[in-house]
Parts: sequence; structure tokens; C-alpha cells
Amino acid sequence: MEYYSRHISGLIEQLSRLPGIGAKSAQRLAFHIMNMPADQVGMLASSMTQAREKVRYCKNCWTLTDEELCPICSNAKRDHTQIMVVENTRDLAAYEKTGKYEGVYHVLHGAISPMLGIGPDEIRLKELMTRLQTEEVSEVIIATNSSLEGETTAMYISKLIKPTGIKVTRIASGVPVGGDLEYIDEVTLLRALEGRVEL
Amino acid sequence: MEYYSRHISGLIEQLSRLPGIGAKSAQRLAFHIMNMPADQVGMLASSMTQAREKVRYCKNCWTLTDEELCPICSNAKRDHTQIMVVENTRDLAAYEKTGKYEGVYHVLHGAISPMLGIGPDEIRLKELMTRLQTEEVSEVIIATNSSLEGETTAMYISKLIKPTGIKVTRIASGVPVGGDLEYIDEVTLLRALEGRVEL
Repeated sequence: MEYYSRHISGLIEQLSRLPGIGAKSAQRLAFHIMNMPADQVGMLASSMTQAREKVRYCKNCWTLTDEELCPICSNAKRDHTQIMVVENTRDLAAYEKTGKYEGVYHVLHGAISPMLGIGPDEIRLKELMTRLQTEEVSEVIIATNSSLEGETTAMYISKLIKPTGIKVTRIASGVPVGGDLEYIDEVTLLRALEGRVEL
Repeated sequence: MEYYSRHISGLIEQLSRLPGIGAKSAQRLAFHIMNMPADQVGMLASSMTQAREKVRYCKNCWTLTDEELCPICSNAKRDHTQIMVVENTRDLAAYEKTGKYEGVYHVLHGAISPMLGIGPDEIRLKELMTRLQTEEVSEVIIATNSSLEGETTAMYISKLIKPTGIKVTRIASGVPVGGDLEYIDEVTLLRALEGRVEL
């Protein structure tokens, strides 16, 4: 890219490393950014560094947040006896968008995958079990993806929780098999929640 | 997005303002950025502010660059008697990628568009005419897009240059290489027919 000058090439290269952004989009974005008012570019840049700097895990549910307790865990109006277990914060956001779930969450940050060598200790499962011992929990809703890894994780968790006597449910398979929660429409997500069955 | 904390929501919002990045992609990018090593986020952010800060127009051809003269204008090996006129720096980059054009460029930063109220004075046309008076130029190749605006601009420029006696050419329009006739619009097909060359 020697026909672009150093800073332009640098920006294009940085942008093209982001997921889902190819060479053409990176170029288009770079020129857009260079045409933006300087203060807006500054805001965009600092929102990145700030989010990266401040981000941490909620000490209770392990979602990504920037406070010790995330907005959901610190909300007294939520039903803290109902915990929905999800694979990541994006999946949590997907359920939050339905606006109908009133319980709280637990974010595993992954799923058990023998193929990728991810065992139960690599995800936030121990932390979930600790919560079940220390908090008053009446139901654990397992909302891992309906992929092989998600199902494996669901089975594993349900076996782990069963002996405690706490009710364990799984979101219904209204979610298409192999689907990623993040991309599923809200109606389907709600249908899956309503149709959850006890494991 | 009150289920995300302030900094995460802020980043998602900033990203979703970029062209071609919808709500879902912004979210995906934000989480990717928060999972990147902090120094890489810093590099990405500073490449934006730096490019924006340093960017300026080449004083000769008006392409976006970060020096007084762009790498092409300052390259003595290029043929400075041949000027290709393009609408923007991305179009310049497109021709540079062919690796076969050895002349220099002139970037108009737009095209004449009566519909959008963009007249000849809104693009870098006066600057082109100045170059033709001060530089030794043998040919001006008009490579504006083959849209209505691009064609209008091409006609306007050619009329302007003709009296100077400098050769003015227009890049050929026709069926793209590898293109399937079946999927090509009628105007292009007609243009290709009109511009047919003897074999």
C-alpha cells in the first residue's frame, strides 16, 4: 500500500485486523474516519481505550461490566432466586433485549468442548456452584447455545446441580439446532424461554 | 442498553455510527475490542487519531496523504506528463493496485452533480487547470466513475481542456472482464457494443 502514506496505511491495516472487516471495508472505514470531525475521532478512539481499560467481570455473575457488581446483579427489582446460565455477555444481552426475563444471570465465558480441550474448569462453573451454596436460588435456567458444546455443557451442569435439589431447566429447543443465540430473533428467544423443560 | 455498563454501551454506540456497521456488528466488534490485549487497543485507537490528525491533501494532486507531496507525486520514476483524473483517493488506490499505470493522478474529491447541487467549483477542477498550465502535461486520462455524475464531470473536463491542445482520453466502459453478459445491465451492454474494437 505504498501509494497510501504511512498513517493511512497504518490505519487501514489496524482496521482490517478486526473480525468481519476485510481489506475493502477497512479502506472504506479509514477514509470515513479521516473525513470525520477530529473530536468525533477522538471520542471513538477514547471509547475503545476506556472500555478496554475499565472492563472487568461482575464479581457475582461474571458478565463484562465496569463496576464491581453489574447493573443486573445490583438491581433489587430482579428476581435473584432465578439464575440463567449463558455462554457469554452477548447472549445475556440477547435475553435482556426481550425485556421479559426478570431473573439474574451467570456468564460462563465459554462452553465445555472436548474438541478444543476446554474442560469444566476452563469456564466459570465453580463460581456458579459457589453461588448456589451461598445465595437463595430456586431455579437455574440453562441457556447455553444449542450447539454440541452448549448441549454438553447443559448436561454437565444439570448433573452437577441435581444433587443440590435446586430446580434445573433448559430453554426449549425452539432455538434452531446449531444456532447462535446472538443472532436469533426475540420472539424465538421468548418462545424458547416459555417452553423450558425441567432436566 | 442499560444491561451493559456505561463504557461498553458507549463503545457500541460509537462503533455503530460508522458506515456499514449495524447494531449487531457494533456489539460483536466491541466485545472483540474488549478482549484484545490492551496495547493492541491502544494502537488501534492511536492509529485513528494519528491518521485523522496528520491527514492532509497532497499540494500537487490533492490525494489524501500525510506529507506535503504524496508518495506518487514525489516519485521521479513516474511519468509526470500523464495525469489520470479520479473522483477520490480510493479510486486512485484501485488503479494503483493494477500496478501497471505509471503516470500520476489528480483527485477531484467528488463529481459534478446538479442533483446534489455540486458544481465545478466544489471539486478540485481549478487546481487541475492550474497544473495543466504550470506542468508539462501530454495527456489527461479521465477516470471518473461511469455514473451519471462521473460522465457529466468527464464531459465538462474534456470541454475545458480541449482548447489547450492537451490530449484528453476517457477510460473505456464496457463489459467487465469475467462478467457474465446475462447479469449486466442494458446500458453497459450498449456501451460495450458502441465501443467495440476491430480484432
